[in-house]
Amino acid sequence: MNELLIHLDSKAGTALYEQIYEHIRQDITDGRLSRGERLPSARMLAAQLQISRSTVDTAYAQLVSEGYLEARRGSGYYVCDSGQLYHLTTEERRDTPATGSDYRTSGGRKYVTQNGCDRDSGQGQRPSALYQFRPGQIDSAGFSYRSWRRAGKEAMLELEHDLLQPGHPQGEYRLRRAIASYLYQARGVHCGPSQLIVGAGNEYLLLLLGQILGTGQKVAMESPTYLQAYYTFRNIGYEVTAVPADTDGMKVEEIPDAGVSLAYVMPSHQFPLGCIMPLKRRLQLLAWAEALADRYIIEDDHDSEFRYKGKPVPALHSMDGRGKVIYLGTFSNSIMPSIRVSYLVLPEELLCRYHTRCGFYASTVSRVQQMTVCRFIENGSFGRHLNKMRRIYKAKHDVLLQLLKGRDWVGRIYGAHAGLHIAVEIKGRVPEKEVIAQAAALGLDLQGMEDCCLADSRGPDRRPVLLLGFGGLTQEQIRKGMELLDQCVRRSMESGMEGKEAEPEKQDRSMESGIERHGREKYT
Amino acid sequence: MNELLIHLDSKAGTALYEQIYEHIRQDITDGRLSRGERLPSARMLAAQLQISRSTVDTAYAQLVSEGYLEARRGSGYYVCDSGQLYHLTTEERRDTPATGSDYRTSGGRKYVTQNGCDRDSGQGQRPSALYQFRPGQIDSAGFSYRSWRRAGKEAMLELEHDLLQPGHPQGEYRLRRAIASYLYQARGVHCGPSQLIVGAGNEYLLLLLGQILGTGQKVAMESPTYLQAYYTFRNIGYEVTAVPADTDGMKVEEIPDAGVSLAYVMPSHQFPLGCIMPLKRRLQLLAWAEALADRYIIEDDHDSEFRYKGKPVPALHSMDGRGKVIYLGTFSNSIMPSIRVSYLVLPEELLCRYHTRCGFYASTVSRVQQMTVCRFIENGSFGRHLNKMRRIYKAKHDVLLQLLKGRDWVGRIYGAHAGLHIAVEIKGRVPEKEVIAQAAALGLDLQGMEDCCLADSRGPDRRPVLLLGFGGLTQEQIRKGMELLDQCVRRSMESGMEGKEAEPEKQDRSMESGIERHGREKYT
Repeated sequence: MNELLIHLDSKAGTALYEQIYEHIRQDITDGRLSRGERLPSARMLAAQLQISRSTVDTAYAQLVSEGYLEARRGSGYYVCDSGQLYHLTTEERRDTPATGSDYRTSGGRKYVTQNGCDRDSGQGQRPSALYQFRPGQIDSAGFSYRSWRRAGKEAMLELEHDLLQPGHPQGEYRLRRAIASYLYQARGVHCGPSQLIVGAGNEYLLLLLGQILGTGQKVAMESPTYLQAYYTFRNIGYEVTAVPADTDGMKVEEIPDAGVSLAYVMPSHQFPLGCIMPLKRRLQLLAWAEALADRYIIEDDHDSEFRYKGKPVPALHSMDGRGKVIYLGTFSNSIMPSIRVSYLVLPEELLCRYHTRCGFYASTVSRVQQMTVCRFIENGSFGRHLNKMRRIYKAKHDVLLQLLKGRDWVGRIYGAHAGLHIAVEIKGRVPEKEVIAQAAALGLDLQGMEDCCLADSRGPDRRPVLLLGFGGLTQEQIRKGMELLDQCVRRSMESGMEGKEAEPEKQDRSMESGIERHGREKYT
Repeated sequence: MNELLIHLDSKAGTALYEQIYEHIRQDITDGRLSRGERLPSARMLAAQLQISRSTVDTAYAQLVSEGYLEARRGSGYYVCDSGQLYHLTTEERRDTPATGSDYRTSGGRKYVTQNGCDRDSGQGQRPSALYQFRPGQIDSAGFSYRSWRRAGKEAMLELEHDLLQPGHPQGEYRLRRAIASYLYQARGVHCGPSQLIVGAGNEYLLLLLGQILGTGQKVAMESPTYLQAYYTFRNIGYEVTAVPADTDGMKVEEIPDAGVSLAYVMPSHQFPLGCIMPLKRRLQLLAWAEALADRYIIEDDHDSEFRYKGKPVPALHSMDGRGKVIYLGTFSNSIMPSIRVSYLVLPEELLCRYHTRCGFYASTVSRVQQMTVCRFIENGSFGRHLNKMRRIYKAKHDVLLQLLKGRDWVGRIYGAHAGLHIAVEIKGRVPEKEVIAQAAALGLDLQGMEDCCLADSRGPDRRPVLLLGFGGLTQEQIRKGMELLDQCVRRSMESGMEGKEAEPEKQDRSMESGIERHGREKYT
């Protein structure tokens, strides 16, 4: 038995027992104390170090609990075989840092482009943009971190020891109840908590839905649409049929007769057109689904929280009396994209299939995360947050819209007065990609309408339409960014004119035929 | 303009400005103050209530920020149209409470049974069991909630405003670096952070893998195996081939030649047999995969953290020089099942496919959760936790093993000295399901080996094998539970003898041929 040469520093930031613990642990780890070696008794060590015996007891107990020492009754403390112990350090390994260590995607939704899959693999190009106009960014200055942290703390304390147990596969009952209550109040959706499935993001829930519905489905999607859903369906192995959209949304009469079993729509705020599907079209779509037993409508209700004009638009689900609408909602825009909490409302019939085929999957959202969202809703923070954010977004929206209205190159404006982006047509025959590339050179990150169209649905000669997301920019940034955009569009148009003088002028119909009746508030 | 009749209570727990805010908000919500109505100026209200003006300013500012009031420059405060505001309450809706409001599944892994899909849909039967021997429970008394909460707090503060931005699709770089470092130190796995994908649980990662590998794969699985993976493969649409397993794991030579492209194995701790795949078999399996370009091995390395005897067994991945092993790990057992953090290590070739096909999926784990795990690892808590838990589990394991060794009805014992369960064969010709049903009547929740076998791989007449999970039970509960099990097995055997006297005695070979060489430590 060696005498332990421990130097205690009473002025150090760490407690005395921790210093003893750390010293002995290090000795064992480094091999200075070897297996089977007996340590001085707590009494002796306390006397030697001139400290209280209980301090040494505490240190020894900690070492025993962690497997470094073994207490033999009546005989003392012995060093254990530490060969099996974990000594995890954080030292750097000699890896080349991966691409994308500072990768940022856009906010609430990640808007991929037609060729975007491999581009999105972590190159981290976007952060370099000075003005991030790409849709899906959210405002972070207005977020009440304090309320969120409080909700997190409450959730943690409340779960306490229950925390270690896995929760319900569909999500915590209390969270589902809170969501059901929110959906009823805010979206007119009538559903019980038992119909709700909480999952880690919209794409995960679409994957799950793919398993519930089974292979071999054919999906009708609007063109333009939310391409991330398109890629997800394709990954599942579903065939996707592009159906033209106008400012009433999907042209239901153009859904092909043959074999289409699903229609994916965004009736309350279409992406990227920003339009609302009017009552007549909604009834038409419901009738389409009701015509065959296995037809369903997937209602993606993203962004519906933010409307700046007119009455709130209830969800399509609220009109569904036959269990034909699968409702998909998310907290990505309304709270923050990084929390990964979305939810699915299943019709009764699909709920049965879910239980049979997928009931064994554990929830993909941690219980603490779920309870944090739950507390955030329950204690009123969520409602306050939505109201506050709507004010903030409305102000940004108004600035952008005002700036757009004064420009001579601005053609039609799509999707104003709702959501977090406005789409704007450029009067001119310049290629969309060229405008975007030129804008990028000036520090503007932009997305074009072209990027949202399914391959076969747009002709080659249409006017550029830019999607201008304003959620993540300050009003000042919107102003400065718009000045730069103004320069860049003018420059593109000038160079476009020069290069294309020889070309015969074609009528730009392909886009206009799709989106020709912008701006009327037709929902009743 | 009405005078506001606000009664302030200076002794209430809430601040004065909050009382004013709440009073006015309520008046607006309830319609006592209507749209366009002008409020008293802050100065007047302060005088009326005999409080400082800044208190009223604070209340008004809050109401403005939440959209209840509008400040008109030089004119005062006016009530906004509150029709669009969210007033989310937590009042109960008239739903019938869903089934499963107090649903509990087993712990670290959810072990489904052959018929378990619909049984598992939220009936919540298991909590009634007094003694939860079902594998996958973890110990919750030994968990250091304090360390975990600290890690959570640190993560929250560290992310701060960055919190709202979505993170890297593969998971936070720093977490991936910490996991890579852990895998290198603890499991011998050499991988860079760029090869790691963090996801919400093993099943999600298998779904993702299904999309990376594409449809039409044929998977070889051991029988018995982890059925949850089996069901997941089937949901993906993969064909599953059952390959017999002995106590060396999968019998590689019995993988059918035709079209099998994947082998799913648990080389360091097979579930439910608990065996280790020896070196020779590992080399054989790697050679099988190397024989064709598109063959891969999925190494599910669950439970490998806990070994109570012998040297730690490195992962199969550590021997893979040709990029043939897809490594799947989880924090469900090593931290807690409810956090939903698993990870996949992809070979370079599959990484490319991941970027092309699935790079657009956002991570399924929230950033705070990821950073909490990251801090937990980095600050040493994870290592300490593992060491502590191993001690705790070893003690429970030893108690259970000791109790089993003394029983005359105990036949072979499988998978001792590692993991969180022991499998025990019962010497007798009584149906496994009958023993389990009788045990359930006494308050014991048990799972049998039969439940883990793929349908076509076991004959009808074999001895029962019970899986006894000890992770979630105290030593005292293990003792009491074993007494009850003893009674119940004796009773089953007696009644079995009576009922089956007329049957001809068959040799019980089907199971033994599979698992005949238990207990040798053959890994070198």
